[in-house]
Amino acid sequence: MSLDEASQKPLDRLAAALAADMAAVNALIATRMASEHAPRIPQVTAHLVEAGGKRLRPLLTLAAARLCGYAGAHHVHLAATVEFIHTATLLHDDVVDESARRRGRPTANLLWDNKSSVLVGDYLFARSFQLMTETGSMRVMDILANASATIAEGEVLQLTAASDLATTEAVYLQVVRGKTAALFSAATQVGGVIAGAPRAQEQALFTYGDALGVAFQIADDILDYAGGAGIGKDRGDDFRERKLTLPVLKALARADAEERAFWDRTIARGRQEEGDLARAQAILARHGAIGAARAEALDWAARAREALARLPDHPLRGILDDLADYVVARIT
Amino acid sequence: MSLDEASQKPLDRLAAALAADMAAVNALIATRMASEHAPRIPQVTAHLVEAGGKRLRPLLTLAAARLCGYAGAHHVHLAATVEFIHTATLLHDDVVDESARRRGRPTANLLWDNKSSVLVGDYLFARSFQLMTETGSMRVMDILANASATIAEGEVLQLTAASDLATTEAVYLQVVRGKTAALFSAATQVGGVIAGAPRAQEQALFTYGDALGVAFQIADDILDYAGGAGIGKDRGDDFRERKLTLPVLKALARADAEERAFWDRTIARGRQEEGDLARAQAILARHGAIGAARAEALDWAARAREALARLPDHPLRGILDDLADYVVARIT
Repeated sequence: MSLDEASQKPLDRLAAALAADMAAVNALIATRMASEHAPRIPQVTAHLVEAGGKRLRPLLTLAAARLCGYAGAHHVHLAATVEFIHTATLLHDDVVDESARRRGRPTANLLWDNKSSVLVGDYLFARSFQLMTETGSMRVMDILANASATIAEGEVLQLTAASDLATTEAVYLQVVRGKTAALFSAATQVGGVIAGAPRAQEQALFTYGDALGVAFQIADDILDYAGGAGIGKDRGDDFRERKLTLPVLKALARADAEERAFWDRTIARGRQEEGDLARAQAILARHGAIGAARAEALDWAARAREALARLPDHPLRGILDDLADYVVARIT
Repeated sequence: MSLDEASQKPLDRLAAALAADMAAVNALIATRMASEHAPRIPQVTAHLVEAGGKRLRPLLTLAAARLCGYAGAHHVHLAATVEFIHTATLLHDDVVDESARRRGRPTANLLWDNKSSVLVGDYLFARSFQLMTETGSMRVMDILANASATIAEGEVLQLTAASDLATTEAVYLQVVRGKTAALFSAATQVGGVIAGAPRAQEQALFTYGDALGVAFQIADDILDYAGGAGIGKDRGDDFRERKLTLPVLKALARADAEERAFWDRTIARGRQEEGDLARAQAILARHGAIGAARAEALDWAARAREALARLPDHPLRGILDDLADYVVARIT
């Protein structure tokens, strides 16, 4: 995961500060991914869970709860819930994207089959739902139900909007919320809810997670055209998969007829030829599209940091602040 | 849906008795399957929802609630929840089974693509989750979370167990619970819960739904080998899809070496030839396997009716009693 690699330093500090909590989360995940009846479930899940990723989302939940002074045990359930939802969406995404590799290993749909990925994903959604009911908080259920709907809606929207040149930046933002920001913001918000934080703090946690997620996704979309080596994804993936991202939207808004025909052929109709990626990068450079997208990512990171100012003073707050910086540092 | 067609008469009476409630359910479904951002969601959902089916599961929820004297409005939310979960599982099942037709129409995965079926299914799961949170009942959440896990677990189990000749009747029953009975029993139980019924009645509603579901699924599995025309599914589907069902398990238990080799070739290894279905039917007949499976289906229907005796006297109770009879009448 490119996010996890890119933001390693503040994330490592977050993991160190929350090591005991995270050990409890990992133990709970191991227990709950078991299935008495269907051994394929833990096989598929373990393949993905053990491959790592830095567990950013559960760390956000734990951090939010601790930041708001929580001393109970339910933040562990919520962190595991969030990780199960994330793992379920990865399994389904790999089917949808027909991916062959994830976290440096062959995807579950390749090792087993699409059927297993769909059904084990469903199982993990159901398990996440069981975990959250154990907290007994209706507010938590409500927030995570809404986040789940936003995630699925964003994914469906991406199917239809991603290759449509009429897609607006507002629609792009909706897709980004579904892909990334909805689970980030739910992860931070439910940490505050379980801690009984005042509504203003809960809202600040939501805003932090949302803005962090949007900043990250824009940065990731920029790196797909402008990244160096070692960013953890292959450059040009989005272009080859015909996904209209913010840099292209910026360039499209300034395109002349010839450039429009180029985007129409490569993205809308998917007839790509040798050298098209380099030409796309040249067009983006000509219009300053990368710079324009970068300015937006920095703006979202600033919003994330502003939201933190409304939260209690706490060592974890400093790490979350650095995390927002780090997410966009790789594009600046 | 063969269930819906086969049990039409008592189901029609149930629909007539609950017509006003069901109109409210249909209105709620229409509202909630909308998506502000992704028009493909209502397109895919409407394709399936409007194709009909008799809405047996939401009717079970409405009937259970009314039977227990419920006078509120949340049974409508729960009925819509149950129908959304059902619709989501149908969308995912069609991807897993690579089905081409459902309810007499081309499947969504054929009309759109597997991606849309997976993601719209996820969206409907999330929507069902939002609907149930609106009831504010943690017990309801708990029951439906557990049912969702049982459904997914049963489906995964079917992937691995269905073509394995070592599968036991206990594993078959677990698969049947996942495919059919878990949602039936959750549908009836949550109707009782929302009505504030005593635990004994709630348990009786669970048992009715569970036994009805198992009876139906065994009957359906029998019809796949022994049904006449017009049963709503093609005879031999399970055989061709290499699904070990109860009639085959009964025959396997009594198989000689030659028959075992036949099942090994056709089910375990899937090397089927012209005439194999007829030979399978002849083997089942020789061992009385259909009769043995039928006796179990009748036993489950009797358990369903017994459970009803522990519920309040009510006109709907008589219809539910007839429904249990009707589900197995087509195999007797």
